[in-house]
Amino acid sequence: MAQDGGKKLVEAITPMEEDFAKWYTDIVKKAELVDYSSMRGCLFIRPYAYAIWENIQKVLDAKFKETGHENVYMPLFIPESLLQKEKDHIEGFAPEVAWVTHGGGEKLEERLCVRPTSETLFCEHYSHIVHSYRDLPKLYNQWCSVVRWEKTTRPFLRSLEFLWQEGHTLHETEAEAREETTRMLNIYADFCEQVLAMPVVKGRKTEKEKFAGAVDTCSIEAMMHDGKALQSGTSHYLGDGFTHAFDIQYTGRDNTLKYPFQTSWGVTTRLIGAIIMVHGDDSGLVLPPRIAPTQLVIVPVAMHKPGVLEKANELLVRLQKTLRVKLDASDNSPGWKFAEYEMKGVPLRLEIGPRDIEQNRCVVVRRDDRQKIEVSLDELETRLPAILDDVHEALYKKALERQNAMTYACTDWDGFVRTADEKPGFIKAMWCGDQACEEKIKTDAGLTSRNIPFEQEHLSDTCICCGKPAKHMVYWGKAY
Amino acid sequence: MAQDGGKKLVEAITPMEEDFAKWYTDIVKKAELVDYSSMRGCLFIRPYAYAIWENIQKVLDAKFKETGHENVYMPLFIPESLLQKEKDHIEGFAPEVAWVTHGGGEKLEERLCVRPTSETLFCEHYSHIVHSYRDLPKLYNQWCSVVRWEKTTRPFLRSLEFLWQEGHTLHETEAEAREETTRMLNIYADFCEQVLAMPVVKGRKTEKEKFAGAVDTCSIEAMMHDGKALQSGTSHYLGDGFTHAFDIQYTGRDNTLKYPFQTSWGVTTRLIGAIIMVHGDDSGLVLPPRIAPTQLVIVPVAMHKPGVLEKANELLVRLQKTLRVKLDASDNSPGWKFAEYEMKGVPLRLEIGPRDIEQNRCVVVRRDDRQKIEVSLDELETRLPAILDDVHEALYKKALERQNAMTYACTDWDGFVRTADEKPGFIKAMWCGDQACEEKIKTDAGLTSRNIPFEQEHLSDTCICCGKPAKHMVYWGKAY
Ligand SMILES: [Zn+2]
Ligand SMILES: [Zn+2]
Repeated sequence: MAQDGGKKLVEAITPMEEDFAKWYTDIVKKAELVDYSSMRGCLFIRPYAYAIWENIQKVLDAKFKETGHENVYMPLFIPESLLQKEKDHIEGFAPEVAWVTHGGGEKLEERLCVRPTSETLFCEHYSHIVHSYRDLPKLYNQWCSVVRWEKTTRPFLRSLEFLWQEGHTLHETEAEAREETTRMLNIYADFCEQVLAMPVVKGRKTEKEKFAGAVDTCSIEAMMHDGKALQSGTSHYLGDGFTHAFDIQYTGRDNTLKYPFQTSWGVTTRLIGAIIMVHGDDSGLVLPPRIAPTQLVIVPVAMHKPGVLEKANELLVRLQKTLRVKLDASDNSPGWKFAEYEMKGVPLRLEIGPRDIEQNRCVVVRRDDRQKIEVSLDELETRLPAILDDVHEALYKKALERQNAMTYACTDWDGFVRTADEKPGFIKAMWCGDQACEEKIKTDAGLTSRNIPFEQEHLSDTCICCGKPAKHMVYWGKAY
Repeated sequence: MAQDGGKKLVEAITPMEEDFAKWYTDIVKKAELVDYSSMRGCLFIRPYAYAIWENIQKVLDAKFKETGHENVYMPLFIPESLLQKEKDHIEGFAPEVAWVTHGGGEKLEERLCVRPTSETLFCEHYSHIVHSYRDLPKLYNQWCSVVRWEKTTRPFLRSLEFLWQEGHTLHETEAEAREETTRMLNIYADFCEQVLAMPVVKGRKTEKEKFAGAVDTCSIEAMMHDGKALQSGTSHYLGDGFTHAFDIQYTGRDNTLKYPFQTSWGVTTRLIGAIIMVHGDDSGLVLPPRIAPTQLVIVPVAMHKPGVLEKANELLVRLQKTLRVKLDASDNSPGWKFAEYEMKGVPLRLEIGPRDIEQNRCVVVRRDDRQKIEVSLDELETRLPAILDDVHEALYKKALERQNAMTYACTDWDGFVRTADEKPGFIKAMWCGDQACEEKIKTDAGLTSRNIPFEQEHLSDTCICCGKPAKHMVYWGKAY
């Protein structure tokens, strides 16, 4: 973080409207979120971004534990024979894995895959420890990194290695496992809305888009500033395919051997990309207050006048008790500091100068709408948390309004294709359930199915593509 | 964790005196710390062990942050050319690395090492971001896993992959970097003593034993129950070797280009092995209270008598406010539960039955010495934390007394060789500083230098081995 008293200027970033992709990479560099390593697609995640991830972890981990989950750690390496046990799974992942072939100076007898996801490892472990219905459910989670050999990469959105959590659970019945799948999707959705101020669409993926090895994949889809979708979390109902493949059996309540039912679910550092692209603006990051590493920065004005720095320090000590606060007492100019913390997306800036001190007040400036609010120094402890809540609500409302404004309902093919071509955003349209139509929509309109939302609307009786009877309303869009 | 109401019996473990190695592996399995994966040397770290690691992380991470350090995340992979930049470093690590040679279905142009440690990655990043003395110090840390291709492995002590933290810092001056090296070693030592109840010897490693690429390596060495040493944390002063190799230069206060000075430091999941081998006994684990996932387990006695379970639940809710508490209301017998939580090393057991309730009291049993303490139900909130502190102190005292009793001072070669042969433990002896003597001691007495303790004693004027003038007193021992 640039608290070094240096003289560098905050350089402007490319405006969003001019080049959204460049705007994004400008932000990740200039807000000091990442640095590029010489290894393609691998990043140095810098303190500011990692602090955001730690805050995400803290909130989610507590939620997982509240709902009975326990953390574990599984190995980084998966022997090839283990990965191959579940056929759909290996077919899905084989093209994008990294292989270790040598260790300790010798060629290995069996090559090892660097985990792209850990279903197979959890299954091997479960096959050792699950024997009776009394051992169920097993509700495990791990925080780790995984590797997927992507051809093109973008910071946070798609990288060779990324940080995530992966939950893996086993249950006695299909109903319990499906309930868990929904529970975890809801935890993710609530987290996005209540903590990241980011509205999401909850739904089920189509057959074509589901996870390799899953019976059903549910997802939350968020709309970025440019109208593209970002799949922000997934929760899979895996059925008993893996438990058969790994021969995980338990003695049931009726004393017969049974295969348990399974789920897995995860969110990744993609969420940081989502935060950037949902809330950011042409001045830089805009961080939702509940996840911001610094919620308020104190900028002393006329810092060298007697009493100013003392008062600023006094406020720091006071406010640190309830908020994540930082004081910038470096010799950079206030103007430089204003720009710097706007770039960093700090939700509130507190300005305090000699006249403020005389009048026992300060000026609080909101990052999201630049509103200036005079606050009495006696009321900071009550007013600041309320203002932070207002910022959260405003960010959520703005994002939701944009998402609504950029979501179109289409009921005829020409309108669909034209909207897909002219209007960035989501299109709601009916679908027959046939993969051929899904593929035609990809080819002719350039859109993929985001998900089949749980909240269905009946837009028409027929498939947007083939005119046959419709089964579902689907969200279509371009995706990161 | 065995809270499943199952009927399994707590099986006895091999007594320590009979076979210490088997005692150890019995504990790691029966206390449900790990499960073996089909991949040699890689473990499934189970919830109970991972919860210990999370508690270790929580305390240390707070200490690191208090002392100004920030967390980051560096890539898992190191391109071979990057690893080779510092000569001593690559020579030290080359024999024990794992190589990724294929990714995304193709052979890679350059093979990638799975990080055995991340000095080279931090250096690459530092070379991008450090330009001026204003950018210093850089005080970074990361929590991750690393891979070292060990020939023989043992759970927590030596494995192909292990969890750790690695701090990497850059400083303007040698003095500052050396101060950081000492600061972090002291943080580790204080943590071991004040949190893990484990005495350690602080000192400097000999040239032969130091880290590949370091100028000086400092370590903390703990004595296990069998008298062997476990290196429990290291802090390296790296000088400016890496900063030269990676061309990290900054403009100093005098406006000339300079190379910064560097440190690195780490502790690993070995600490869990240390906890087992310092405090454990023939009934299982004995966890130091400040790190125990469960500090107190409530075991209702005559559970089905009216009011017992209600009272137990009431105590759970009350005590959870200040302690990590668990209630075992399963239908296993109290005797089974006593054995189970002894195996798990839970510091305190609280027994409550109908007669206790009548008399408004309960019985608290200490895991470490089995002492039974009657406590009034009105005084639990004050008495329990005090008892936990007593347990901590007692564990520390016992470990220190054992370490003192098993540490021998030798001043003649025959006595040294005989003691090494007959007495497990540490031997303090003078050394001339010559590597030849160190090697002879290894060959003839089977001991390696643990470290040159900061607290020196003058045992004699001459080297235990060659009789030449002595430079240092050294701790010698067998090590894990
Ligand atoms: Zn159709
Ligand atoms: Zn000598």
